[in-house]
Amino acid sequence: MRVAIPLFDRFTALDAVGPYEVLKFLPGAEVVFVAAEPGPVRDMDGWLTLAATAAFADVDSCDVLLVPGGPGARALLADEPLLGWIRRMHEASTWTTSVCTGALLLGAAGLLDGLAATTHWGATDVLESFGATYTPERVVFQGKIVTAAGVSAGIDMALALADRLAGPTVAQAVQLVIEYDPRPPFDSGSPAKAPQEVRDLVARGLR
Amino acid sequence: MRVAIPLFDRFTALDAVGPYEVLKFLPGAEVVFVAAEPGPVRDMDGWLTLAATAAFADVDSCDVLLVPGGPGARALLADEPLLGWIRRMHEASTWTTSVCTGALLLGAAGLLDGLAATTHWGATDVLESFGATYTPERVVFQGKIVTAAGVSAGIDMALALADRLAGPTVAQAVQLVIEYDPRPPFDSGSPAKAPQEVRDLVARGLR
Repeated sequence: MRVAIPLFDRFTALDAVGPYEVLKFLPGAEVVFVAAEPGPVRDMDGWLTLAATAAFADVDSCDVLLVPGGPGARALLADEPLLGWIRRMHEASTWTTSVCTGALLLGAAGLLDGLAATTHWGATDVLESFGATYTPERVVFQGKIVTAAGVSAGIDMALALADRLAGPTVAQAVQLVIEYDPRPPFDSGSPAKAPQEVRDLVARGLR
Repeated sequence: MRVAIPLFDRFTALDAVGPYEVLKFLPGAEVVFVAAEPGPVRDMDGWLTLAATAAFADVDSCDVLLVPGGPGARALLADEPLLGWIRRMHEASTWTTSVCTGALLLGAAGLLDGLAATTHWGATDVLESFGATYTPERVVFQGKIVTAAGVSAGIDMALALADRLAGPTVAQAVQLVIEYDPRPPFDSGSPAKAPQEVRDLVARGLR
């Protein structure tokens, strides 16, 4: 079972690495990080560099396509090499998935027209510009297309995929191996829950 | 504020990237991935390669030391270049922290003797061999030493550190930015919660 994760300049690392750390444990899994060219790919801050080990041209099919987001995703909404590759992967995939603003890339590739989908809460307008209906849920299944909300939601999505791909016992075993028993010290992980002063700070920019 | 994250062969990527994705948002933060030599470092499966941009010799102090775990950690419990660097960082750090079996490296460096600490649930005996008392909590604070449980617990720890370093409004803002409103599809993230058949599968080995 091949899991393919495209990388691009200014991606968000946790979008990719959270689900990676789940899906890699599934029986028979192999994971490949793919980019326009093999080599180092820097994240949104430039502090973290992940290596792509294959070029888009080298990967002609996969079982699970997992598209991360990040500021760089918004710069690629007309990038035909990436979008064309996403369309080709989708043709034969078992699951075509996104995390965070990776959904915008699925949308730009034409895969979300008329579907319910989720993305980062700050990108709902762009998502809907591709014909999708934003749905404020953690993970949205529509046939074989699965979208997850912002950044950390990819872990929850990957466990749901693990259930579909390998059954509930394996999915729960992966959850135990990564000790995913979340206890955030605050309850501020969605706009509906975050206090006004927190939302104001995010609107002004954290840094 | 410098956050230093050591990498080593066969580390667990989410141990490092989860907290990275939180701490990088703090005001004034810069993050450096450090290894014996700068260059690519492969994770426990060899599918994921993160770049170290500095050598241990290049980093002589940091504000937050964050030590990830992974199978490779157990191979380094007598590795003086790494352990000596951890001790040097600890001398002037504001926070000395670990995720998962990163705690074994803090222990091997002599930092946990007589302290309460946590680690991955599968590594408690080794942790206690260094004089620590295993405490089955998600995050354990002991003075400036902070240990987190397995893999995904680093995200919770980093939010708790964000609170200490930058206050609750900033910490909650980071939680909102990474949309950390966890909804795992199962409740199997600790040995106390996982069903017997799930624990048996993990004991036999997932793959």
